This record gives sequence, C-alpha cells and structure tokens, in this order.
Amino acid sequence: MKSIYMDHHATTPMDKEVLDAMMPYLTDNFGNPSSNTHEYGHIARRAVEEARKKMADFIGAKSADEIIFTSGATEADNLALKGIAYNQKEKKGQIITIQTEHKAILDTAKRLQREGYETAFAKIDEHGIVDLDHLRQLINPDTVLISIQAANSEIGTIQPVAEIGKIARDFNIPFHTDAVQALGRHDIHVERDNIDMLSISGHKIYGPKGIGALYVKKGIRLVSLIDGGGHERGMRSGTLNVPGIVGLGKAAEIAQRDMKTETERLLKLRNKLATGIESRIEQVKLNGHPTKRLPNNLNYSFAFVEGESLILACRGVALSSGSACTSASLQSSYVLKAINVPESLAHCSIRFGLGKCNTEEHIDYLLDLLEEKVKKLREMSPLYDLAREGIDIDKLNWTKHSH
Amino acid sequence: MKSIYMDHHATTPMDKEVLDAMMPYLTDNFGNPSSNTHEYGHIARRAVEEARKKMADFIGAKSADEIIFTSGATEADNLALKGIAYNQKEKKGQIITIQTEHKAILDTAKRLQREGYETAFAKIDEHGIVDLDHLRQLINPDTVLISIQAANSEIGTIQPVAEIGKIARDFNIPFHTDAVQALGRHDIHVERDNIDMLSISGHKIYGPKGIGALYVKKGIRLVSLIDGGGHERGMRSGTLNVPGIVGLGKAAEIAQRDMKTETERLLKLRNKLATGIESRIEQVKLNGHPTKRLPNNLNYSFAFVEGESLILACRGVALSSGSACTSASLQSSYVLKAINVPESLAHCSIRFGLGKCNTEEHIDYLLDLLEEKVKKLREMSPLYDLAREGIDIDKLNWTKHSH
Repeated sequence: MKSIYMDHHATTPMDKEVLDAMMPYLTDNFGNPSSNTHEYGHIARRAVEEARKKMADFIGAKSADEIIFTSGATEADNLALKGIAYNQKEKKGQIITIQTEHKAILDTAKRLQREGYETAFAKIDEHGIVDLDHLRQLINPDTVLISIQAANSEIGTIQPVAEIGKIARDFNIPFHTDAVQALGRHDIHVERDNIDMLSISGHKIYGPKGIGALYVKKGIRLVSLIDGGGHERGMRSGTLNVPGIVGLGKAAEIAQRDMKTETERLLKLRNKLATGIESRIEQVKLNGHPTKRLPNNLNYSFAFVEGESLILACRGVALSSGSACTSASLQSSYVLKAINVPESLAHCSIRFGLGKCNTEEHIDYLLDLLEEKVKKLREMSPLYDLAREGIDIDKLNWTKHSH
Repeated sequence: MKSIYMDHHATTPMDKEVLDAMMPYLTDNFGNPSSNTHEYGHIARRAVEEARKKMADFIGAKSADEIIFTSGATEADNLALKGIAYNQKEKKGQIITIQTEHKAILDTAKRLQREGYETAFAKIDEHGIVDLDHLRQLINPDTVLISIQAANSEIGTIQPVAEIGKIARDFNIPFHTDAVQALGRHDIHVERDNIDMLSISGHKIYGPKGIGALYVKKGIRLVSLIDGGGHERGMRSGTLNVPGIVGLGKAAEIAQRDMKTETERLLKLRNKLATGIESRIEQVKLNGHPTKRLPNNLNYSFAFVEGESLILACRGVALSSGSACTSASLQSSYVLKAINVPESLAHCSIRFGLGKCNTEEHIDYLLDLLEEKVKKLREMSPLYDLAREGIDIDKLNWTKHSH
C-alpha cells in the first residue's frame, strides 16, 4: 500500500471527472485543432475553445482570447517575463519581483539579468509578505513589469494581490502574478484585482501535467518564446495539446464549483493539524504567515530534527521539506532563508500540503507519527540535550509545550 | 459516423497500447518526478527514465541522457535553433536551412534574423531535395548550425540525412534535423547519420499530444528557452509531463517494433492509391520525389480543380491540402511554391497522409470518390474546357489518361 499523500504543492492527482472529460480526446477525437478541412479538426477546435472559456470564466477574464495555453506554469512564467522584456529590447528594462518566488521566476529573472536587464527585489517581512511601500519606491521609469506570486509554494503566504495590482495600475506598469498555488485555493479575479498576466498550472489544480496557461490581458504585448505557425494569437506556437487543454478546462470548472466547500474542509483539517502539532510537540516554529496563508499549507520547523530525517521516519505519509523543483539540490530552502529563518531551523522544516486526498483520519495518523518520531530523533540528538540546558529557545519564537 | 481519416501528417490517433501504458500515470502514479522524498516521486521518476531509454534506443542515441523532453516538436525546433544561436550571442552566426522546412524552423529562423542572426537557404531541386554542393558552398566561418528536415510534411520528400550529416561533421558544424514526419516511417539513426540534434513529436507517431523531445548529442551546448529549476540537464525546466513522457516512450517502442511491417503495408496502400489516381484521372501531377518519399505520403495536383473544393466534395474522407500548421492562412502552400509548382497547380493540390487507420477498402472507396468528384468539378470549370482545346498540358508534366 502506498503512503498517504500530503504533498499537494508538488503535484495533485487528477480528478476522476477531469480524466473522464479527457478520454474522448485521448481516443476517438484525436484531431489536430488546426486541421480546418475535416470534422476531426473541427471537433478538436471546439473542445479547445470551450476549455478556454471555462478557464477565462474561472479567473474572471473578460474574454476567452486572453487565455494562452502553454506546456505548464514554468513556460507561462518565462513567457510573461521574457515576453515583456524582449518586447522592449533596447530599453533593457527593470523587473520588480520578490526573493521568495518560484524558480521559474527567479531563474528567468537571472537569465534576463545576464542579458543586461535589471531585477529589483521588493522587501518582504518575516512572514514573506511584500512591503508595498518599498515596492512603490522601487518603481522607476525603466520598470517594465512587476511580477509577484499570489501565494508561496513552501510557506503558503498569500500576497496582497489586489493592492499590488492597484499600485501597478497607478504607475501604468503591467502586473504579472504566478497563481499556480493560489488558484482554486484562494479567491482570484484578474479584472477586479488589476492583474495583467497570470500563470496557471494544470497539475496543481487536479488537472493534467504538461499543460498550463498564461492569462494575457488584451493590450499587453509579448514576444513569443516558441515560434512556428502562429498559434495562440502568435504568442505560443505548436500543435495544441487537446486532451491536456480539455482537462485543464474541466479542472477549472471543478475548482470554480467546489472551491468554497473544499477550502473550508481543508482549513478545518489544516487547523486540526496545526493545533495538534503545537500542542503535542514542543519547540516547533511555524514558518510563514499565521493567517494570510493558503488553507492547505503548513510549514513547521521541528528544532533539533533534520527535516529530511523526519520525513524518512514518517514514511507512512508522503511529505517534503520544500519545493519539488529545487529538491534536487541539497541546500536548505531559499524561501526560508529569505524570511530570515536561521539555517539551523531551515534544515528542520517540513512542508505539509493538504488536498482532496486527505481526511481527518490522515491528520490523526500523522500527528501520532510526528509526535513519536520527533521524540525519537531528538533523543538521538546531542544538540537537543544541550539546548534543554542552556539555549534560550524563546528568542527563536518557538511554541512551548503547554502542559 | 466519422469520415475515414487520411490526414496522418497533421496528427495520428494514439495507439491503444500507448494509452494503456499512460493510464497508471494518469491515475494512481501521479507523483512529481522531482519529489525525491517519497515513493510517488520515485515511481514517476523511474517511469520517465525508462521512457527516455526507449526513445534513445529507438533513434540510436548513445545515452538516454541525450534525450531532452519538451512540450512538442515546435518547442524542440525552437530550442535547437535558438539554443545554438544564443549560445554564441556575440557571434550572430549563420544558420543554414531550406525553404521547405516546417514553420517551426522557418519562423524561428525569421525571428533570429530580426535579432541580427543570418539565415542561408540551400537550394533544393524540383522534388524538394537539397543540393549538397550548394549546401557545402554556403558554409562559412560564421555558420553555427545546419538544420534540414528528415522528410517533408506536405510532399513527403526524404532528404539525404546521412550525407548532410557527413558534410556537417567534415566542417565541424552541428547538424539538426526535424524528424517529426520521418520518425517511425523511415530509418533514422543519430549516431550512424552524424546527427547532433533531432526533433521528435509524440502525436505524429501514435503517441500523445503535448509531448516531444530534442535529441542533443553530448557535447552540444544550448541556451535553454524555459528556465526555472534546471530540469532536463538545465536545458528545459518545468515539471515533467509524466503521462506524456511514458506515452512517448511507448510510442517509440511500438514504432521500433512495428516499423518494418507497417511501412511495407503502407507502401502497398500508397502505391495502390497512386496507381489508381494516375490511371483513372487525367491531368494529375505528383508533387515531391517519385521514390525518395515517405511511404505514407502522396501529394497530387488535380488540374482545374480547387484543392479545397475537392476536399469538401470528398467529405467521406478526411484530407487536407497541406500543413495543418499553416492552414489558417488561405495562401497556397509555400512548400509547393519552393519547388516551383505553378500557382495554378498549387491551388489544386491535395495531400494524402496514410496511416495505421487505413485499409485497402479505404483506398478503393477514395479512388471511386476522387474519380467522380474530379469529373464533376471539372465539368463546372470553364478553364477546363479551354484547356482541352488549347493549352499544352505536357509542358506541365501531367500524367495523361492512357486509355
């Protein structure tokens, strides 16, 4: 039997309804939507346009044309940043972002920096929330884009997207947000929130892997990264991934339909887990904002316990210490570093990513497991003994065992 | 009931075996291959690496590491051309290609030209085959890449890939080939043929849409187009599309296993269709090489009959007049123009793309249909009457009705 999956920030299983919607397009309806001389093509084209409408509706876009399908959110992020930058190549403009973005933003910004563009990082507080005053100060005549995520994949911190959008609009600067983690878990509406571009991932909202989208508000001009045939309004060429697109559309429809109830359910589970951890295990520290965080996210540092060791010890539950996209490296989380979590604690962190797979029983099971394994691992830690005698644990703002 | 599908250059239906191989990864095995702390991730990673091996084996690559998964062949083509060009940005080098390439190559070359890079087009003969002497002459110290397709998607012409590879190797210039149409239909072996990069599409070889690959020979250095996390040896970031990759691997395995028998079967059908058309309909012209062409391809101009009208009239069979990727435009085929087919005949062309879906009965049905509809459409054409009286049809090298 497989372990209990609790790593929904890394990826999510596809909804049965999503797969059902895809099946005809994985079998009989296999046409290329660009084939305009026969019904195989027409059927595929109609399915794509229907999915486009569903996604537009879900995020509050004015028009379905504003949805550009991509191979995923990483491509969408690249298209947003490079597309804007390359559109004013001579300007070598400035992009404003924050240090806790996904690597798809940070690595892309780095690439642009190497090419002569500028990146400025708006300050964030100890919970990871952007400093709006500093953001405003960073804006200068060279600023071509503000790109700030809607929510963080490690610590779940939710950014004040509407306020960022307002600032961007005031200065007439395009605003992009990577909404991969927030979508379906937090209310987002591109028109209301003044969002000009928004990155979407299929596999993070119980849809398929290999598909994503970039919302591009009418009027925003991007240089395409992938040329050849002029698909997707010239912004993204290549044969459309029809089953993937149909699946993404269905996932958007389901997220829109179920978000309220599922979010409430997750919040209950999440709070049960948080309360359990904080009451049953001493010297744990919550990373990220106590309330402005995704309803399915927790991130705790368990002092004196290596995160990786604890994850291994809790083998019955599939957990991770941070972003899957950086897990190949053995460095501790750059996100925790950016919010000033000391190295010693950053190494002790675990990310809990709840999702549709999870039930109350899972939380009970995990709490028992965590309590037992943390205790065992700490017993083997010489540092822990020392700490019990001398170190001022309050300075680290850990929770204290209350009984 | 749907029409008989005969547009296998545009896309192909997925093999049942491919879908079966994908199903576990569309359901239970949904992990992110980058998740290295739990079995969901490990299972996904193993599946990806197995698929990588299958593809490497199929195309004769030395090492599975040389396969870089992409979202499709358009992205692979872009990565090959831009990746090489941007790697020597200061040089603003020259790329040699031909006028009959897919738009993914031509539009990318155009983009590079706008950025200051050079494109040179090697001459092709009236069948579309590259002039190797001219190719050799074009090479200069600024040449950074030769990119010539393995086979054409409209006229099926097969290029002398091994000879091009030899020339490229002699001059120590990387050689890229878009093998989208050739793969599984014509023998290709990257090591034997001195191919340094090769573009692969899933959905053209009875695999999934939204997945492709670029073979990148060890030692070739590319700048990535999509950054963020450093997946795929740093050349292509983004969460791996596990079901797509598994499907692509399976499609490669099947193609390798069945290529010989299926190619022979297709060749018989294809020749039956060609013989039928040429014996039953007068004034038709074969576009492309008579023998050096894909076993599943035919491209005929039916004089005095609009290609689009004939396709509409033959509604029982799904056909097209050319590439799906350019079918949005109403211009006649740039491929036919490049091989000097006169405009009047280019407008009369139909591409026949046979595949696994097709049987002898389909050919019989199509031949009856074509004969009847061409006759009917010509009866309505005033030009046809004139031509019967005066125009020298032999000058156009049409076949003549022999009885």
